[in-house]
Amino acid sequence: MRNILLTISYDGTGFSGWQRQDGQRLASGNAPRTVQAELERALAIIHKADTPLAGSGRTDAGVHAAGQTATFLSPVKNMAPEKYIPALNSHLSRDIRVMKAIEVSPELHARFSATFRTYRYFIHCGGTAFAHLQRYVWSVHRYPQVAALNRMASFLRGEIDCSAFAAAGDKSGSKFRYLEKAVFYTEGSTLVFEITANAFLWKMVRSITGTLLHLEQKGCDWQYFGDILASGDRALAGPTAPPQGLFLWSVSYEGKRRGRRY
Amino acid sequence: MRNILLTISYDGTGFSGWQRQDGQRLASGNAPRTVQAELERALAIIHKADTPLAGSGRTDAGVHAAGQTATFLSPVKNMAPEKYIPALNSHLSRDIRVMKAIEVSPELHARFSATFRTYRYFIHCGGTAFAHLQRYVWSVHRYPQVAALNRMASFLRGEIDCSAFAAAGDKSGSKFRYLEKAVFYTEGSTLVFEITANAFLWKMVRSITGTLLHLEQKGCDWQYFGDILASGDRALAGPTAPPQGLFLWSVSYEGKRRGRRY
Repeated sequence: MRNILLTISYDGTGFSGWQRQDGQRLASGNAPRTVQAELERALAIIHKADTPLAGSGRTDAGVHAAGQTATFLSPVKNMAPEKYIPALNSHLSRDIRVMKAIEVSPELHARFSATFRTYRYFIHCGGTAFAHLQRYVWSVHRYPQVAALNRMASFLRGEIDCSAFAAAGDKSGSKFRYLEKAVFYTEGSTLVFEITANAFLWKMVRSITGTLLHLEQKGCDWQYFGDILASGDRALAGPTAPPQGLFLWSVSYEGKRRGRRY
Repeated sequence: MRNILLTISYDGTGFSGWQRQDGQRLASGNAPRTVQAELERALAIIHKADTPLAGSGRTDAGVHAAGQTATFLSPVKNMAPEKYIPALNSHLSRDIRVMKAIEVSPELHARFSATFRTYRYFIHCGGTAFAHLQRYVWSVHRYPQVAALNRMASFLRGEIDCSAFAAAGDKSGSKFRYLEKAVFYTEGSTLVFEITANAFLWKMVRSITGTLLHLEQKGCDWQYFGDILASGDRALAGPTAPPQGLFLWSVSYEGKRRGRRY
């Protein structure tokens, strides 16, 4: 059995998130759609056998991915791994696309071997966003000050207790995460927030994004964001940004994993 | 009554095109969705009266718009025209967005006063396009030669008999159109074909795009495209490119209309 690593993009609009729901093996007509279940169904058709797929992590309902990753064990001999790309895509609806397929060492686990995850959050500024962008941006109807946002985001570096940005249902043991990068930049009238960490708590990116935009709009002193972070108190943080602006952009397996185990 | 000009963007994926279908006034549950009918329904709610909306022209099922235009007569006094933007958008699904609303002279007609229309056709080149782009590009799985395409497109200038690129059902009298611009350029891994004319025949942009890509792939001499154009014979032209890559990008009412009446 060979260990195959897939890179997957999906439009999260029509999905109840990445993760297969309890008891859901093959997606039935009435079950909520999940990306994992639809990929496993396509693998089952190709392999004529159930093939569990392990993702790098969950994404929530409505959240997109440009570079989600997942591994499975392939029972097929003598097939180039990249043949999985057209084979899987031909059995998937167009809102899931397999972008890459490579063979990796048997020890690599999509979730536990990942060194860094990068998310991008897309914010449409000013007037109305084009209809074809509506599914992929959060529209704020104003022009936030990028310098002010980046000054606050400068607190998001190194090993940090992220309790203030953990959603109520987060089940992680430790709330510490190692943050590598957190920066805002503009692309035309779109404001992009890019954040890289060894891993994220549940809804953490959306909590941080919503809070930063909220504080910037209120004109708070930038140090106040540091106070919220230090407090570890979710009640002090701001609103959670909506899911449709968020993309799991890439997952890295290179370099050394930083930060403590959790 | 004031004459209001709307600029409208829509994601054509869920629509049977721009034009209200026969007998369709208010969109009912079973009727195919059309952009015009949904906008007229929103206007009827705001005005509490039927309000016919005249578009600059039709777009086909699956074709998108960034800048479709349409006019209607407003019975509302003392309201700034731009108030129609949030008012209409609040009654529309998110795959239609009104981008602008201005008052124009009573003589302006969305269709007959337009001086130029610009379409953009988006072609994804090379590997698999991201899932969130699938609805908005034609994927050709190769890298066409941009210089060869532009050499052929150089025939598309001035007043031209476009019969070779008219779909079978086209009902125009004259098949002459005045072509202002036709150029290919790249944006990352996306190839864009931008074409501007006083007006277009039915499916003309998709016929031209499909033919140009077909001839480029076959390595035909660039003059052969000129021969097809001169022949006026649709049977000599190539396949019609699919609708999802096409956007009605803008409609202009400035400058002098060029080319003959039709």
